Amino acid sequence: MNKFEEKTVNTNKIYEGRIIDVEVDDVTLPNGKASKRELVRHPGAVAVIALTDEGNIVMVEQYRKALGKSIIEIPAGKLEDGESPEVTAARELEEETGYQAASLDFVVSYYTSPGFADEIIYIYKAEGLRIVEEQRQMDEDEFVDLKEISLEEALSLIEQERIHDAKTIHAIYYLMYQSLKGE
Amino acid sequence: MNKFEEKTVNTNKIYEGRIIDVEVDDVTLPNGKASKRELVRHPGAVAVIALTDEGNIVMVEQYRKALGKSIIEIPAGKLEDGESPEVTAARELEEETGYQAASLDFVVSYYTSPGFADEIIYIYKAEGLRIVEEQRQMDEDEFVDLKEISLEEALSLIEQERIHDAKTIHAIYYLMYQSLKGE
Repeated sequence: MNKFEEKTVNTNKIYEGRIIDVEVDDVTLPNGKASKRELVRHPGAVAVIALTDEGNIVMVEQYRKALGKSIIEIPAGKLEDGESPEVTAARELEEETGYQAASLDFVVSYYTSPGFADEIIYIYKAEGLRIVEEQRQMDEDEFVDLKEISLEEALSLIEQERIHDAKTIHAIYYLMYQSLKGE
Repeated sequence: MNKFEEKTVNTNKIYEGRIIDVEVDDVTLPNGKASKRELVRHPGAVAVIALTDEGNIVMVEQYRKALGKSIIEIPAGKLEDGESPEVTAARELEEETGYQAASLDFVVSYYTSPGFADEIIYIYKAEGLRIVEEQRQMDEDEFVDLKEISLEEALSLIEQERIHDAKTIHAIYYLMYQSLKGE
């Protein structure tokens, strides 16, 4: 697990923000030479593959400032301090879509950009959805548009690059695999 | 494509690095309120799903400073200035694994962390691999260990979190889907 380990000589904190911190570490490489690593620290996130009783996938369209465009994604959000991923998953699903799920099952976790960031994302699958009567408030800087999309539509949206992020494309391949496997 | 667009009022450059730049934008939200967006700029990257004639997946184990551990990933690397993704894919495959491919086909592209980063990754599938006689040099701060892994082993490595990043897990689901589809 520590093959080719790089020893930290010094950590230079560059920025502490609301969502990310940035640091540049001076490291010693396995060959003894010095190098620098630019690192983004992130609290981690969850994303939810939520399926309606009709088999559609619940998604949200939102503007992504980093990309300069709006894309269609599965519901997701970052972990709050001390919150377990499962609690975050249920909270974000309800905040962004107004749904509560009868079942919420862990699928997999992965690092999104291991070359420079420690962001990990925990993926859950939600089924048995019902609309809550009093929907929780979203963060005050969040604006999303709810959509329920079939697997076929989702594939077409990938082609059009309207679905264009790792977690959502992974979710669609996961569902396609599950649907073939189940046949 | 611009639904809920956030207008940039001011861009504060925080850091310009070798791999990432960091900025904090003052924005106007769709409801007219002011907010801030923390953004990481990245040149983009490629990753290659390279299959041997035996059907194994070519992977590399490398230490990831951001995670503090080594993980097993499909070969990948960032785009150099003015380089097309296809050229980067062929170059990184050869540098990291010593293989050239008879065919290199585009699969999909996606943003890794649209909430804070503009990193896009272009995924290629490589087949017809042959070992090059004089392998290109890797970057001088790169140390990788080559592995050729079956789909079954890969699934077990996901369970063990030795494979633990978005692009590699996505590649494995893609291959599982293709293998079922082809049956």
